[in-house]
Amino acid sequence: MSFLSRLNAAWRSSSSLVCVGLDPDLAKLPSHLRGKPGAIFEFNRQLIDATHDLVCCYKPQAAYYAGQGADEDLARTLTYLQSRYPHIPVILDAKRGDIGATAEHYAQEAFVRHRADAVTVNPYMGGDTLEPFLTYADRGVVILCRTSNPGSSDFQMLDVGGGKKLYELVAEKAAREWNRNGNVSLVVGATHPAELRRVREIVGNIPLLVPGVGAQGGDAAEVVRQGLAADGQGLIVNSSRGIIYASGGQDFAEAARKATASLKNELNAARGG
Amino acid sequence: MSFLSRLNAAWRSSSSLVCVGLDPDLAKLPSHLRGKPGAIFEFNRQLIDATHDLVCCYKPQAAYYAGQGADEDLARTLTYLQSRYPHIPVILDAKRGDIGATAEHYAQEAFVRHRADAVTVNPYMGGDTLEPFLTYADRGVVILCRTSNPGSSDFQMLDVGGGKKLYELVAEKAAREWNRNGNVSLVVGATHPAELRRVREIVGNIPLLVPGVGAQGGDAAEVVRQGLAADGQGLIVNSSRGIIYASGGQDFAEAARKATASLKNELNAARGG
Repeated sequence: MSFLSRLNAAWRSSSSLVCVGLDPDLAKLPSHLRGKPGAIFEFNRQLIDATHDLVCCYKPQAAYYAGQGADEDLARTLTYLQSRYPHIPVILDAKRGDIGATAEHYAQEAFVRHRADAVTVNPYMGGDTLEPFLTYADRGVVILCRTSNPGSSDFQMLDVGGGKKLYELVAEKAAREWNRNGNVSLVVGATHPAELRRVREIVGNIPLLVPGVGAQGGDAAEVVRQGLAADGQGLIVNSSRGIIYASGGQDFAEAARKATASLKNELNAARGG
Repeated sequence: MSFLSRLNAAWRSSSSLVCVGLDPDLAKLPSHLRGKPGAIFEFNRQLIDATHDLVCCYKPQAAYYAGQGADEDLARTLTYLQSRYPHIPVILDAKRGDIGATAEHYAQEAFVRHRADAVTVNPYMGGDTLEPFLTYADRGVVILCRTSNPGSSDFQMLDVGGGKKLYELVAEKAAREWNRNGNVSLVVGATHPAELRRVREIVGNIPLLVPGVGAQGGDAAEVVRQGLAADGQGLIVNSSRGIIYASGGQDFAEAARKATASLKNELNAARGG
């Protein structure tokens, strides 16, 4: 089943636009887990068990595992999700990109080694560098467009001719050139509601992965107002820190469930039920 | 010692502008190594032993190790280089990039976990996403500018105002904003000699990592003519496939040495030294 079919099924069955970002930082784990072997996996497992019926997606951030030497925790987390909750799609947030022969190995990392349903990629190197990912027709390719960070305007907001911004050109190419397998999504930060609306105009119902609510300051209801697709879905609204560190104590999983439910309800209220 | 100091010392002691790209593909290993445990490390080790006195740098490509589940081979390769040939700097070619809090973990992956001297990064997300790398003042940050692949013109050659191309703006920011610690380099493909000249004009003596000679069609002598810095150095000319697969047989290391010497001599002939 394709990423889009799986995502559509998950949107419907969960009635939720929420994606939980699994970005575990050893330094921020609850003290009763810190320092124990497999602590990162155990943290993730409890978060997943506490939130699985409230989300359309999970998004492990590859950097946290790579930086902390926690490859095994990432592998166990993906295996756990795939065996226990196989109906929930998983986006590996890795922001990969390289020339063709090399990008094939990154596609293999995401789609074969980790069996992720989708991976985030960076378009700067050009369309040919996305092909090795796009050719996996049943997997999602989530392309950076207008990112949530303050410096994202440095290049993404440049006028590249005729009043068109670079992020708009990326969105156009995504919808018109790169989506022939129906497996493209785009990243647009919640911190940029005007551009979220503009991207939605350009791409129709293509799914948008929206980071930046919560800790980064994006407004969840505004995301729905500007970014909801015509079919009432189309948004994967990610929260990481606001959910996984909702409590720093023994009750972290319960607090994560509450924070997830709260975000789910806020998004659903904004889309009118 | 800073990356730039180490690179300068390696340029002088080796009299070479050649960087060997360690991009081992299990499917292309010599048949006598294929299928053996640790084959990738053994392939790299023999390549390194055969070429160490002819190079200014090694550049393992992270994708090959990640895609093939060869993290251990990458770790062993880096440890081998660092213990046996500590005077040769190592660039981890990973093309990382993410928002600040996440990029810190990627910087940790490259500079702490792997103890690489430098890492390649992608500028699309903006200057703030490079800061977590730049702040490691003794390590090199090699920023994608004008890449060697055919599709690199999709965005990098866009006119972003006043006749300035996107890659030129990246080069300007690299030289004027991001290089306050003197640790910035740029990637410019050998397949684009005119832009190589232009980048050199913009950035002065900043080192340029130049992929794309050999298999990708770039002309080595032309790289020197267009890209050499005023001090007679400034170029890290990478070859991967042309060196590591110079022979597919038992004599691969010897063949790699010959190909490396040939490229070194071609580059030195062009710089008239």
